[in-house]
Amino acid sequence: MKRIVALAGGVGAARFLEGLARVVPPEKIFIVVNTGDDACFHNLHIAPDLDTITYTLAGVADRRRGWGITGDSFRCLQGLGRLGAETWFQLGDRDLATHLYRTERLRQGSTLSQVTAEISLALGVRATIVPMTDSPVRTQVRTRRETLDFQTYFVRRRARDVVQGVSFRGARQARPAPGVIEAIREASGVVICPSNPILSIGPILAVPGIGEALRKTAAPVASISPLVAGRALKGPAARMMKSLGLVASALGVAKLYREFASVFVLDCADQGQARRIEALGLKAVVTNTIMSGWREKKALARIVLESLR
Amino acid sequence: MKRIVALAGGVGAARFLEGLARVVPPEKIFIVVNTGDDACFHNLHIAPDLDTITYTLAGVADRRRGWGITGDSFRCLQGLGRLGAETWFQLGDRDLATHLYRTERLRQGSTLSQVTAEISLALGVRATIVPMTDSPVRTQVRTRRETLDFQTYFVRRRARDVVQGVSFRGARQARPAPGVIEAIREASGVVICPSNPILSIGPILAVPGIGEALRKTAAPVASISPLVAGRALKGPAARMMKSLGLVASALGVAKLYREFASVFVLDCADQGQARRIEALGLKAVVTNTIMSGWREKKALARIVLESLR
Repeated sequence: MKRIVALAGGVGAARFLEGLARVVPPEKIFIVVNTGDDACFHNLHIAPDLDTITYTLAGVADRRRGWGITGDSFRCLQGLGRLGAETWFQLGDRDLATHLYRTERLRQGSTLSQVTAEISLALGVRATIVPMTDSPVRTQVRTRRETLDFQTYFVRRRARDVVQGVSFRGARQARPAPGVIEAIREASGVVICPSNPILSIGPILAVPGIGEALRKTAAPVASISPLVAGRALKGPAARMMKSLGLVASALGVAKLYREFASVFVLDCADQGQARRIEALGLKAVVTNTIMSGWREKKALARIVLESLR
Repeated sequence: MKRIVALAGGVGAARFLEGLARVVPPEKIFIVVNTGDDACFHNLHIAPDLDTITYTLAGVADRRRGWGITGDSFRCLQGLGRLGAETWFQLGDRDLATHLYRTERLRQGSTLSQVTAEISLALGVRATIVPMTDSPVRTQVRTRRETLDFQTYFVRRRARDVVQGVSFRGARQARPAPGVIEAIREASGVVICPSNPILSIGPILAVPGIGEALRKTAAPVASISPLVAGRALKGPAARMMKSLGLVASALGVAKLYREFASVFVLDCADQGQARRIEALGLKAVVTNTIMSGWREKKALARIVLESLR
């Protein structure tokens, strides 16, 4: 079965994939998810992007907050606070089950791929969700003063620091999760979801072998700009691109992907950049990329699919 | 400061200690708690008796259920169930905070004594609560067919099996927790709470040094019968004593404690046994031991204190 492979971060990717799973059979979607954001809290293995993708496709994601499970409560977290433990990383009670289960299965010797498959099966997700790697890769952010773990930068310090560098600890020794390289090689098309190119797609590309597979695959590779009019709909992508000396625009993102992408999907607001993107050797597709509802999500998915033909 | 040392299991002990903490300053109470029931679920270190004592003295125990925190919810457990994980050991959401905190602190290298002190401090408990040992001791129950971990016997199989033997794995290598021997040696009095003599007090006495300290201390040692009219108010004590070839009565319990106890407190319902208990060399104190409310709890505490003078 020819599948569509998607490289995904968290919320932005999840919204796009929701639409995609309505316009193609979900069984045909193979999603490679960033795990550079993974972290350990209270001895639990937290995998924020895997959970966001899984919960969204399972229909249980909290859309308003952008993380966790809808209608979740926080009694355990309140209890931890009462005991004087750290509570800056929010853990919902229902969400905790996922972390406890994942942590226990990993300690028993399962791989992250296996556990991810078990969780998505249990929650009724029909698309295939795999971590980019089963090895530990941890995104670190360098500010003027120090190097921060991703979640410390992102959650605890609310992404306020000026980022001077980003690195992916453990990436060099990491191997792509089972099936990732084959899936890219045999894909009918590859989609780089509208995620932060540095923090979400960056770690995936840092896993040795994945970039090469993208360059070598016969499948067309379409990327979707996460920036609209120079701003990210969510998260620090634009500000971070600037502080890293990149241009925070659709064009700036297109430059990061031109090595392996053949199509670049950008928002109508940025149509003025289409010609310069085409000049990079990419086919520019201008459309509405703001996925405010089901109609927009499905329309964007259809246009991306079309561009992969 | 002269302190009263109490050896304690779970619910029965907690009820007695609640009364005691109302009739003497709680700071004068030093409680040595059974940890033979401790278990590992979903990689969490669960210490049921420590939690029952701590929650009860903190005023947050769920009295109706006899375990956990009052008004707790079970969303995480439901989530674990949905993931196909085992859920026969019930974990409340608020309660989970204690287990997560304890497990994390133990992994960081703290001892169970230290973590227990931190938790009881955070919950506002003024009495001193210590585990019998910081070493792992695990109660195991032998049935006709197999050897069961305590929680498998007690919770999963609802204490239905006929018990032919009880052992305390790890007890021989265990050392009493810091302060336990000194507390017994320097106590103004020692109380063996109305707990299961085999499953709750048994493990404490199995820790090398504790039995000797009880025999040697100059302090009077009073024990309270957990059986009334040959039955335990809660739990399998009576049935288990019988299946182990013991007599399930106040007298039967008194025999188990006569080596070090000088006082035996029994219920009015069993006053007929007082003479035979006295014949064992124990001072028998007959009173109402059923602690239905605050009045009864405090009255029992006062009578026990009186008997220690």
